[in-house]
Amino acid sequence: MNTPQQSQSLSLTLPDPLPLDSGAQLSPVTIAYEQYGARAQDDSNVVVIFHALTGDQYVASPHPATGKPGWWDRMVGPGMPIDTDRYYVICANVIGGCMGSTGPASANPEETGGAPYGQNFPVVTIHDMVRAIGRLLDALGIDRVHALVGGSMGGMQALAFASQFPTRADRVLVLASAARQSAQNIAFHEVGRQAIMADANWNGGEYYGGTHPDAGLAVARMAAHITYLSEAGLTEKFGRRLQQRPDGSDGTKSFGFEADFQIESYLRYQGSGFTRRFDANSYLYITRAMDYFDLAEEHGGRLADAFANTSARFCIVSFDTDWLYPTEEGRHIVRALNAAGAPVSFVELSSPYGHDGFLLETPGLDEVVRGFVS
Amino acid sequence: MNTPQQSQSLSLTLPDPLPLDSGAQLSPVTIAYEQYGARAQDDSNVVVIFHALTGDQYVASPHPATGKPGWWDRMVGPGMPIDTDRYYVICANVIGGCMGSTGPASANPEETGGAPYGQNFPVVTIHDMVRAIGRLLDALGIDRVHALVGGSMGGMQALAFASQFPTRADRVLVLASAARQSAQNIAFHEVGRQAIMADANWNGGEYYGGTHPDAGLAVARMAAHITYLSEAGLTEKFGRRLQQRPDGSDGTKSFGFEADFQIESYLRYQGSGFTRRFDANSYLYITRAMDYFDLAEEHGGRLADAFANTSARFCIVSFDTDWLYPTEEGRHIVRALNAAGAPVSFVELSSPYGHDGFLLETPGLDEVVRGFVS
Repeated sequence: MNTPQQSQSLSLTLPDPLPLDSGAQLSPVTIAYEQYGARAQDDSNVVVIFHALTGDQYVASPHPATGKPGWWDRMVGPGMPIDTDRYYVICANVIGGCMGSTGPASANPEETGGAPYGQNFPVVTIHDMVRAIGRLLDALGIDRVHALVGGSMGGMQALAFASQFPTRADRVLVLASAARQSAQNIAFHEVGRQAIMADANWNGGEYYGGTHPDAGLAVARMAAHITYLSEAGLTEKFGRRLQQRPDGSDGTKSFGFEADFQIESYLRYQGSGFTRRFDANSYLYITRAMDYFDLAEEHGGRLADAFANTSARFCIVSFDTDWLYPTEEGRHIVRALNAAGAPVSFVELSSPYGHDGFLLETPGLDEVVRGFVS
Repeated sequence: MNTPQQSQSLSLTLPDPLPLDSGAQLSPVTIAYEQYGARAQDDSNVVVIFHALTGDQYVASPHPATGKPGWWDRMVGPGMPIDTDRYYVICANVIGGCMGSTGPASANPEETGGAPYGQNFPVVTIHDMVRAIGRLLDALGIDRVHALVGGSMGGMQALAFASQFPTRADRVLVLASAARQSAQNIAFHEVGRQAIMADANWNGGEYYGGTHPDAGLAVARMAAHITYLSEAGLTEKFGRRLQQRPDGSDGTKSFGFEADFQIESYLRYQGSGFTRRFDANSYLYITRAMDYFDLAEEHGGRLADAFANTSARFCIVSFDTDWLYPTEEGRHIVRALNAAGAPVSFVELSSPYGHDGFLLETPGLDEVVRGFVS
């Protein structure tokens, strides 16, 4: 394992307003980001990592709120597959997020006294997110990057960035992702949004001075969390095993509504832990961005056209137990890249972890990432 | 189609208290049921149908609250696969339910003034539900039935009844079901329960005099509804199509949190419609009963022993796109019945409808049901 790196909590305010797909403009725009490794003088070693829905910029350094290790510290660091002894790695919090980049909890410049946007924050898209990253790279004086890397929503951003800026990346690595959000995935997101909006504390998005809609946000997280795991993985990890009682005795059915089963206790823990590090409005905005994502749609329904003129080569990775972004979605991207004449390799990895496979110890994953990025 | 039959809204109060698996007793116990067709003098033509989680006794007659046709009127009626010209069909609302059988909204005899049980209703199991049905049959003077039929939770009840009363049924037809609730299914149920309990109007289950926790119940229904359909079916039916605007114009993205996608609108409609016919506490109790269900567990982990001494023959039907109770769960039952020496046939039907396949126009389904029941 690499030595934990200190969080740097960098941030940068863009010099200009950011035009959004909705037609609105966002201003000011602050981008919070982390960096790892040393930037080469010729900028030849820049790797941009895009985070997933509930991820953040703390890829390989402790999360400032929870103190937990970075979400991908088994992948990024000195000597790791994305080797910070060789590469200069940047990861930025998405706009709409809640870890320092401008989002619904940020001060709305149209309100006096710095009141937060809440639901007055404009709806942003995956393209808006990567447009902001493009501006961040501009501000840092980085024209072209060695690699774009992202899993899940991070993969959507990698694809969108490659499409929007066809000459700014050499390599694009997309894990457990898709070029469009499916009906089933929109449906699960809508359940989460309705759970948040059903919480009386949500209050139309205006809760920052008071009690946050934690109960609703926890339910949203619980529903989503099930979709990140595989049925077989859940059976293996929890099955129907009962929760040990607080006094240490073996679990028995309570004939009540306590968390009798380990899976119930696990989900409740995931739900409540999430509310300590995430903002409910950000959850609404970021899921909306994902649901709106359909890279083909913007190109007359032809996904290949999204990659016309690309100068990058691609690697698409799927996981056989991922039912959120199944292998077929990966193949769909590969076919489009083939049609666009872009070099692409495709790997389906076998993993028990479902969608979370890209974050965990999936056999072969490290080799694929190291091999493609190097 | 058969002529709609009038709802009869029959009910019967059991003469004795009902012992429950928890050790508690339920008393009084009222069972609300419907009947179709004429009972043969020798009782040779009795078919008992067990309903699913959100089903009820209105199999083939209009639902008194919604006015909608019975939930299985394409299967049950004169000349239909379960032919009421030949069979006398009974379906009773489960205890814990909210359509007339004793449940959490019923008057708690230990409260003065007829206040409802709420959360003081005892947790019931699938075995408790079928014990109540056994008592109903006793009261009606029916010793042995021609067939037990049930899909989903109804299938669990059919299995439990066959196990608890090994000589009271000739045929047992189980559709889209399992002999135990999986970890993933418990997880989805727990999300639904937490959504209900997160609704401030739930108020510890005491809401009957005031506002019901409809928002939480709707979220629970939405999450569950996704699991009843197949991914391919959702893509086929809704895909990423946008909702037509109220003025009839083509759908566009609202860049807000309205139901832009048809799938969102559909789910919201399913959620709100459900609250008009279902009680949130019943949803808690019935999901709990399903989660507790593990027929093998009560027999030292050996499912075959649950069917020792059975005199019935069985038919187990699964649906290839059902990911809630996948074919493997059906095969698991079949293997146990084989080991118990019970005659069993097994059919996997191909359907685009996911778990809901047993309720819809699945090719081959009618023939299988008619063939086995006749």
